[in-house]
Amino acid sequence: MVAARNKNAESERLKEVMEVITRKLHEAVKEIEPTQQEWFEAIMFLTKIGHMCDDWRQEFILLSDVLGVSMLVDAVNSRRPSGASENTVLGPFHVGDAPEYAMGHNICLDQKGEDMVVRGRVTDVDGNALEGVKIDVWQANDEGFYDVQQKGIQPDFNLRGVFRTGPDGRYWFRAVRPKHYSIPDDGPVGDLLNRLGRHPFRPAHLHYIVSKDGYDVLTTHIFDPEDKYLHSDSVFGVKEGLIAEFNCIDDPASSEQVGFDGPYWDVEFDFVLAPKEV
Amino acid sequence: MVAARNKNAESERLKEVMEVITRKLHEAVKEIEPTQQEWFEAIMFLTKIGHMCDDWRQEFILLSDVLGVSMLVDAVNSRRPSGASENTVLGPFHVGDAPEYAMGHNICLDQKGEDMVVRGRVTDVDGNALEGVKIDVWQANDEGFYDVQQKGIQPDFNLRGVFRTGPDGRYWFRAVRPKHYSIPDDGPVGDLLNRLGRHPFRPAHLHYIVSKDGYDVLTTHIFDPEDKYLHSDSVFGVKEGLIAEFNCIDDPASSEQVGFDGPYWDVEFDFVLAPKEV
Repeated sequence: MVAARNKNAESERLKEVMEVITRKLHEAVKEIEPTQQEWFEAIMFLTKIGHMCDDWRQEFILLSDVLGVSMLVDAVNSRRPSGASENTVLGPFHVGDAPEYAMGHNICLDQKGEDMVVRGRVTDVDGNALEGVKIDVWQANDEGFYDVQQKGIQPDFNLRGVFRTGPDGRYWFRAVRPKHYSIPDDGPVGDLLNRLGRHPFRPAHLHYIVSKDGYDVLTTHIFDPEDKYLHSDSVFGVKEGLIAEFNCIDDPASSEQVGFDGPYWDVEFDFVLAPKEV
Repeated sequence: MVAARNKNAESERLKEVMEVITRKLHEAVKEIEPTQQEWFEAIMFLTKIGHMCDDWRQEFILLSDVLGVSMLVDAVNSRRPSGASENTVLGPFHVGDAPEYAMGHNICLDQKGEDMVVRGRVTDVDGNALEGVKIDVWQANDEGFYDVQQKGIQPDFNLRGVFRTGPDGRYWFRAVRPKHYSIPDDGPVGDLLNRLGRHPFRPAHLHYIVSKDGYDVLTTHIFDPEDKYLHSDSVFGVKEGLIAEFNCIDDPASSEQVGFDGPYWDVEFDFVLAPKEV
């Protein structure tokens, strides 16, 4: 009945989207059978979320994240051939103008945390090394904060950088082992998680955007397998194929070779790019 | 997967509600397959709605209304035995402290509009007259505005009042024929209606809350059958059983009997109250 009103919509797509949304909303109401009071609580919950949003905080995205909707939207937009690396959520902490470094650079600018080497190889789905791949990485520090969350505490562009693969498709850089952190939980979405008995934490991870002309842009994370929140990521970003290995290297010769003074974490992770769909 | 996280929710009901909402949201995403851009437009639409809400404007209720959700919530909460009068939406313009009048009082306090007599009988489902029924009525004026929308233009409590039935179950009062009006359409919900090719109007109606101890509270409207928006109410409030008859009485003796100077509209509408469920 509602959808029939939309026959003069400005586009077929808008009509289609509103038909599905209206139908699913009505199905939800019929199944939940909310009381008037419950309906009003839902109205006020959405209103509070709206009032929490400003230029710096997007509480509706947070709601989409904790309900698994953001990951699902990513999934329907990132169908890849078998063997290609999987996407996960972009998250709110990417910046567009991180500096480009030579391979091996240490992106930790304040020497805080446990040293780490991250390395791997980028190939196409046939295993051929890809040259000139742009690898844009960023991560939280060992206290679970990004530089942009701690302006004046962390140096600008701490723990972020851009690298480009050579003919062998290999990349490597130095950083510190990242830590798990809480999504912003002082608003209505945090209240909801609390009422649902859910914690607000994301397991430790590094962010990547791996891109090269002619290939699907890969927006993903790699995860620390030992993190206690690995199987309960508050935004459902973890995929089995994105869990890395973190090996402790306690060998002075190896440390000297990579430019560290003592033991460090060695993380190896390869990426496989899918050809761009045309 | 998302719902499994909620096993420690503070209540079974919250768990159940969030399970349905999450499942329906995911079904909608799978069917719509939104692009990242479309998903972001949805986020920004909800954000704008939130920012439109304040103490005087509830844009999320408006969204619920124009998607037919408010009427559906009313329907699942108002299942009545056959023959009982049907509910419709309360709307935002009810006030709790309207004056109580003797039967026959004219609730039009500014003499503007076409004179109207409204009358009828309140019974139980067996047809027995109900005494002491509280009839709380309110309506827009002949320009489509409620008193509370035109403070200082219309007198306070214009076109609203409370009446109580006697032993015969009958009620009658005088007023003016109401006019259709637009829901507030200067916000994101109005923009949506516009993009969907839908108008924002509600057909002319009178509001009633009919109540007596021991019976289901009846919150409803009666509609003017000649209104051009009768079959396209922007909030889906019209039900066949709530369409009244408006008869023009052009007879000096009748006019004199009800206290008018000339022709007037005669509207007869009976209500049947359902016993309260215990």
